[in-house]
Amino acid sequence: MRCFWDERQRAHAPAAEFFNGALHPAAEHGGRVDAVLSAIRATEPARDHGLEPLLRVHSADYLDFLRAAFAEWRAAGREGDAFPYAFPVVHRRALDFDRIDAKLGQYSYDTSTPIGEHSWQAAYWGAQTALTALEAARADGTAFAFCRPPGHHAGRDYLGGYSYVNNAAVAAEQALAEGGSKVAILDVDYHHGNGTQDIFTDRNDVRFVSIHADPTTDYPFFWGHADESRGNILNLPLPRGTGYPAYERALAQGLEWVAAGSPDLLIVSYGADTYAGDPISHFALETPDYTAMAGCIAALDLPTLIVMEGGYAIDALGANMAAFLEGFARRG
Amino acid sequence: MRCFWDERQRAHAPAAEFFNGALHPAAEHGGRVDAVLSAIRATEPARDHGLEPLLRVHSADYLDFLRAAFAEWRAAGREGDAFPYAFPVVHRRALDFDRIDAKLGQYSYDTSTPIGEHSWQAAYWGAQTALTALEAARADGTAFAFCRPPGHHAGRDYLGGYSYVNNAAVAAEQALAEGGSKVAILDVDYHHGNGTQDIFTDRNDVRFVSIHADPTTDYPFFWGHADESRGNILNLPLPRGTGYPAYERALAQGLEWVAAGSPDLLIVSYGADTYAGDPISHFALETPDYTAMAGCIAALDLPTLIVMEGGYAIDALGANMAAFLEGFARRG
Repeated sequence: MRCFWDERQRAHAPAAEFFNGALHPAAEHGGRVDAVLSAIRATEPARDHGLEPLLRVHSADYLDFLRAAFAEWRAAGREGDAFPYAFPVVHRRALDFDRIDAKLGQYSYDTSTPIGEHSWQAAYWGAQTALTALEAARADGTAFAFCRPPGHHAGRDYLGGYSYVNNAAVAAEQALAEGGSKVAILDVDYHHGNGTQDIFTDRNDVRFVSIHADPTTDYPFFWGHADESRGNILNLPLPRGTGYPAYERALAQGLEWVAAGSPDLLIVSYGADTYAGDPISHFALETPDYTAMAGCIAALDLPTLIVMEGGYAIDALGANMAAFLEGFARRG
Repeated sequence: MRCFWDERQRAHAPAAEFFNGALHPAAEHGGRVDAVLSAIRATEPARDHGLEPLLRVHSADYLDFLRAAFAEWRAAGREGDAFPYAFPVVHRRALDFDRIDAKLGQYSYDTSTPIGEHSWQAAYWGAQTALTALEAARADGTAFAFCRPPGHHAGRDYLGGYSYVNNAAVAAEQALAEGGSKVAILDVDYHHGNGTQDIFTDRNDVRFVSIHADPTTDYPFFWGHADESRGNILNLPLPRGTGYPAYERALAQGLEWVAAGSPDLLIVSYGADTYAGDPISHFALETPDYTAMAGCIAALDLPTLIVMEGGYAIDALGANMAAFLEGFARRG
């Protein structure tokens, strides 16, 4: 399988995130890069598709904010990475702010996703990596886009969950713009893909199914509940401690629903944080399970683009990534 | 003027707040207490009116959360005060959470308002102080409730801006429940009283007018814009640097609008953070201006309850408080 990675994503290096009442070392750090690259060896860089594909998913004011935020933060005399601290939890609406703190709140939903000097560059090239891999997936049947930072928590005009630009959504919209008629997105990250859900709610041409930790106990808390399933959205929350047998049953249900929509492209938001050893997650999948999981997905026999989301057990990340890709290789 | 203060408010002692990307010493700290008390000398404690008056303003689930949050935070193994880190900026709705971090996000809108061991107790007795002072205001014409922590940023089911229970709103609802027909709330804190506005939007029996720093540059950013003025809400945002002449013109406009509603009670949310020397604010009022301001308000000749909100220039806080109360004394 052709794998895509662009070195311009690497410079994004958040030092810390704020949770549990304190700043902690960032879980989504640059060490993830070499862990994944160790598993996939040969990679191809991204081709630049410009800003237009990103604008099919994100609002222009949001992208303008992302591009300028770090410089505005520093111009305001602040140090380190840019963090929000106040959020429009009610009456959220478009407002024209002069102050970077207001803008950060306007376009964020957590304090885990700081904007550093190179965050925009990395997010931009992450989306370009997804777009480049999309071309390979359509030509060859499968492709892997190693996108970093992840994307599935980013909505049309908000960041959060280490995500700034929604790579899976950008690829989906590009496929539709280039003549695709139906896209399915399967999100198997431990955390609900709230950004992707919000972007595609009520769409006839995109189905979104997410298998994830129950949001009553796990991030992102406010999205991903079973009762949000309707129309083109299917949420399959699972309890902490879920192992592969129960996971595979949910996966089978999700894949059946994907197939029922007769998509001409499948995009998989892949997170390795369902792994038993993940430091911030609580499922119990083991490395070989990812090969089995991929085999189930590959059996759909759809053109498939795999997009990287989370996964924070650095020592096992490469092996888990390799196991997942292996499940597709066996199909060929 | 009779002044009310209850020592059970004092124990609330947040160590830090998170903004500008770091934890900073809390601006709303216990040092404010003695600064204000130095100006008002004799105080009377609160009489306990129970939880019912708070339940006229806040949802039961929110008050349950406030009461239990710190214990749940510590039970989850966390240290220090309880902080949120993820917020429902879209699709906010009632959800039943097992996890304290989710609850903190559900009921907060910023990271400046941690919940400590004694926050609930202080907020509860702050509301009782306002209720007790209300009785004096109705008997004597004026009274001052030294409420701490402040209240005007707290909404029906959210905390923020150092506010947990909306003391002014609790007093207003109590006055109406006891036979009042119309209440006006004048908010002269530097920051918009977003909680009070949200609580009373679309009500026929309460008018709310706020004179405050333009939210395009100042906290709380997402509320207090001039275009939110409608019906029973009047927002009069002023630019940074505003001095007393321009302030008094806005005050006159606000008071005229208050009088036009023929209220039988006026509640003043008083913040001394319009002072030129306030460390977190940017207006240019001087100490004698507070006497003039109070004189304008007193000229309405309405039963008036003054409720303490912000004010962080510790060295001048007592003098500013005294100057404000002096303007009412001259009326008598």
